[in-house]
Amino acid sequence: MADPRFFRNVGPFAAGALADAVGAVLDPPEARDRVFKETGPLSSADADTVSFLDNPKYVTALTESAAGGVVLRPEHAHRAPNGAVRFLSDLPYRSFALIVQAFYPEPAVEPGVHPAASIDPSARIGDGARLDAGVVIGPDAEIGEGCWIGANTVVDRAVRVGPRTRVGPNVTLSFCLIGADCRILAGVRIGTRGFGFAMDQRGHIDLPQLGRVVVGDGVEIGANTTIDRGMGGDTVVGDGAKIDNLVQIGHNVTVGRGSVLCAQTGIAGSAVLEDFVVAAGQVGIGPHTRIGRGAQLAARSGVIRDIPAGAKVGGVPAIPLREFHRQNTALARLARRPAGPTGRAEDDDHEPDDKTDD
Amino acid sequence: MADPRFFRNVGPFAAGALADAVGAVLDPPEARDRVFKETGPLSSADADTVSFLDNPKYVTALTESAAGGVVLRPEHAHRAPNGAVRFLSDLPYRSFALIVQAFYPEPAVEPGVHPAASIDPSARIGDGARLDAGVVIGPDAEIGEGCWIGANTVVDRAVRVGPRTRVGPNVTLSFCLIGADCRILAGVRIGTRGFGFAMDQRGHIDLPQLGRVVVGDGVEIGANTTIDRGMGGDTVVGDGAKIDNLVQIGHNVTVGRGSVLCAQTGIAGSAVLEDFVVAAGQVGIGPHTRIGRGAQLAARSGVIRDIPAGAKVGGVPAIPLREFHRQNTALARLARRPAGPTGRAEDDDHEPDDKTDD
Amino acid sequence: MADPRFFRNVGPFAAGALADAVGAVLDPPEARDRVFKETGPLSSADADTVSFLDNPKYVTALTESAAGGVVLRPEHAHRAPNGAVRFLSDLPYRSFALIVQAFYPEPAVEPGVHPAASIDPSARIGDGARLDAGVVIGPDAEIGEGCWIGANTVVDRAVRVGPRTRVGPNVTLSFCLIGADCRILAGVRIGTRGFGFAMDQRGHIDLPQLGRVVVGDGVEIGANTTIDRGMGGDTVVGDGAKIDNLVQIGHNVTVGRGSVLCAQTGIAGSAVLEDFVVAAGQVGIGPHTRIGRGAQLAARSGVIRDIPAGAKVGGVPAIPLREFHRQNTALARLARRPAGPTGRAEDDDHEPDDKTDD
Repeated sequence: MADPRFFRNVGPFAAGALADAVGAVLDPPEARDRVFKETGPLSSADADTVSFLDNPKYVTALTESAAGGVVLRPEHAHRAPNGAVRFLSDLPYRSFALIVQAFYPEPAVEPGVHPAASIDPSARIGDGARLDAGVVIGPDAEIGEGCWIGANTVVDRAVRVGPRTRVGPNVTLSFCLIGADCRILAGVRIGTRGFGFAMDQRGHIDLPQLGRVVVGDGVEIGANTTIDRGMGGDTVVGDGAKIDNLVQIGHNVTVGRGSVLCAQTGIAGSAVLEDFVVAAGQVGIGPHTRIGRGAQLAARSGVIRDIPAGAKVGGVPAIPLREFHRQNTALARLARRPAGPTGRAEDDDHEPDDKTDD
Repeated sequence: MADPRFFRNVGPFAAGALADAVGAVLDPPEARDRVFKETGPLSSADADTVSFLDNPKYVTALTESAAGGVVLRPEHAHRAPNGAVRFLSDLPYRSFALIVQAFYPEPAVEPGVHPAASIDPSARIGDGARLDAGVVIGPDAEIGEGCWIGANTVVDRAVRVGPRTRVGPNVTLSFCLIGADCRILAGVRIGTRGFGFAMDQRGHIDLPQLGRVVVGDGVEIGANTTIDRGMGGDTVVGDGAKIDNLVQIGHNVTVGRGSVLCAQTGIAGSAVLEDFVVAAGQVGIGPHTRIGRGAQLAARSGVIRDIPAGAKVGGVPAIPLREFHRQNTALARLARRPAGPTGRAEDDDHEPDDKTDD
Repeated sequence: MADPRFFRNVGPFAAGALADAVGAVLDPPEARDRVFKETGPLSSADADTVSFLDNPKYVTALTESAAGGVVLRPEHAHRAPNGAVRFLSDLPYRSFALIVQAFYPEPAVEPGVHPAASIDPSARIGDGARLDAGVVIGPDAEIGEGCWIGANTVVDRAVRVGPRTRVGPNVTLSFCLIGADCRILAGVRIGTRGFGFAMDQRGHIDLPQLGRVVVGDGVEIGANTTIDRGMGGDTVVGDGAKIDNLVQIGHNVTVGRGSVLCAQTGIAGSAVLEDFVVAAGQVGIGPHTRIGRGAQLAARSGVIRDIPAGAKVGGVPAIPLREFHRQNTALARLARRPAGPTGRAEDDDHEPDDKTDD
């Protein structure tokens, strides 16, 4: 159960109301008045709790669960424990997410400007916005209606933040236009100078970075992630993109609508990710590459050439995932068999330096 | 010698007192009253300085050193320079660390709340705590006795920070319970929203993240590291864990007691590191994996399956280190020899894009 | 064209003045009075715009461009579109950068200390410096003439910042000496504790970190980058080095003059980069390694041994780039051909875990 010091449960809710709210079909239909108080995983759920089954590999956990309610696909309905109310859905994870949101809605924004915030007189602050202590808003900046700007966050000159966007503490926004309903977590840096120089042994010469960062609606940007502004033209993050922590996005990159970038991924300048690209953790995407719509990049892959739409790739340099597995298998086999005329596999005496303390 | 603008040397100390304090045996015993003023490496040490030998590969540096005192293992005592006082210890690096701590103790916390800090009236601030300028403490937060909260750090609603913990500047703590005697460096983000969505082309749906981050005692967390809160249940960092800069720890991860995570390592959601795991730099650990007690992960390894206790692994995907070396050797050999019926090794014409400026 | 809310164009300029300012030769010479209003890429340039050709692979774009002025090498002059004024230069990208700087100079620093800054009375603030809201300056710190310290940045005790250096918002500077004319972007952490412990299952023992970070002149440090102070002796960044976002630099590292480190690169303790080393994105450099002058490390390479001056390396562990390509080719070929007595290539059934949501 969620710690009430941090999270507020606004339940209980009747099963019928929950099913209606998330577009699930109640089974049995007469369970509409059954009341639920909590949500949680199958393993710890009790009779008052709604849980879910998405991945069929956990069907045993389903059968053994004490959950009073379960969101699942129709084809798994018969595997639910005896007496459990079933919320039938073709997208059980999605439906469950909406049920959890019903129990634990995002807290409303309590409007107000903290006296320890520093707001330039030329800035425009929308109705119902909340600005916490230590917030600094520069000249001509515009904070939308119902925004929440966290403590010690800096919103620089002329930046625009769309309505209902929530910006965490200790964030820096500069040279950017942020859409509506975004969530920007603590420590994010948007609009910093792109890494552009004319390299020269007499001293590298700055290329002025004269573009912006344009972020769409409904975007999430994770803690300590950095997004540089364009050099000429903009760095763009499309609507609904979800970006994890410590991600780097270089100047003039385009991140397509609905794309998902996991932690510590880095995207070099001018790369284009079409819509719904998924990059798992610690991926690297080279400059000027194009990643086709819906392509999936396995964790730690390193992309240096264009990737077609829908492809699944892995490895460095990234190749089709199936080929990557085949190469790993072939290499393992090669290393196992005897080599050379002596029939002995050679070996490398060198231990890699695994000191971690320096 | 340490720059006195930044560090204060509280010596000199007599050899006998130092040896007693760190559990070393003085050799010769009659050197108890010999006085030392400084600590330092063998190469620059003089007659007033205590140095150390840990790695036997530097024994030549020992013999040639002008150090007046040396911490070393008994078996290296005869290699010390003439006239040098020996501090015999089975763990010379540990004993030397304690001697350096004696000369350069962590400065005491000078209690006080800066007038430019913003403290919610419902927050509880322990005796002897120090809160610097720009600190923001939210409602119901609790700062332990003797804590030091650095400038412009934000401690959000209901967070608890244990006694004597030192939090650097520009940090964000939210949805977390921090133990005693921890050190949290500048720019750390703890308790940010886990990266949880039901992916959906109509718009990814947030899974509310209803857990906390629970950090044990004596933990160090490096600059700009990010630790997300759990989705349901907590993200946990065990007592005495040491975490370097720019590390990412996903929701519901467990980092075992005494584990050491070097810089830029990333741990995906729900992974479990048992106690005393060591991850060198830039390691990636996949979701839902379990790393056994004391396992060692070489720099840049990428773990996608469980790793047994005590194993040493490397590569992507991570395999036993010995096997990784063997594969590297086999591949190098393969690439050197002629291939195919023509007897010519094929080559790749493509130069990778090594532009760094875009 | 750059968004005038964020950038100010101080043109127009006559072609002759521009050519003189950047050391280019005007062709034809009689075009000195031709006026230009803007700079931009070949694809979008119009008759009032100066553009450039550096990489010959874009020569078609040159020929088709509507640009009124083009910076290019003498050998490409005949490929410029009809009527375009040519600025002939052996280093066209450099010359173009200087022309862009002429149109869009870095805005001057408007001196002043914001009333919401907290300055220790013992700190020295140079003439013409600007300190924004929420800035915290510790005792004995020294801010040079004409510096700009961004909002909510913390400059700790005894730190020295050289003249004309610009520090972004939400930065932390401690235990460091920063040179003149540097640019330090938002969220940078300099001088945090090096990651030094005597590892011990009874509890890792801190090695006090008694060195500083010494940053030369004209250095750029990217957003959320972290640079630890030395353990004994200093961490050093040479004049003119350019460091991108989210880079980690460990204790006692030396980064040579004019080196360029792209995003998410990590350098372990005591590594030495000689002058003009270039590390592309996500590179890892192991502890105590030495990278020779002018060496180039391809994106994602992992260096565990010394690299000679001028070498180009890639892969993990890093090897000469040519060899790395050859190995990739050999492995691809190996995986394609049938294996073993059955004539069937083995394959790996395991799909890697590509869940990105946990």
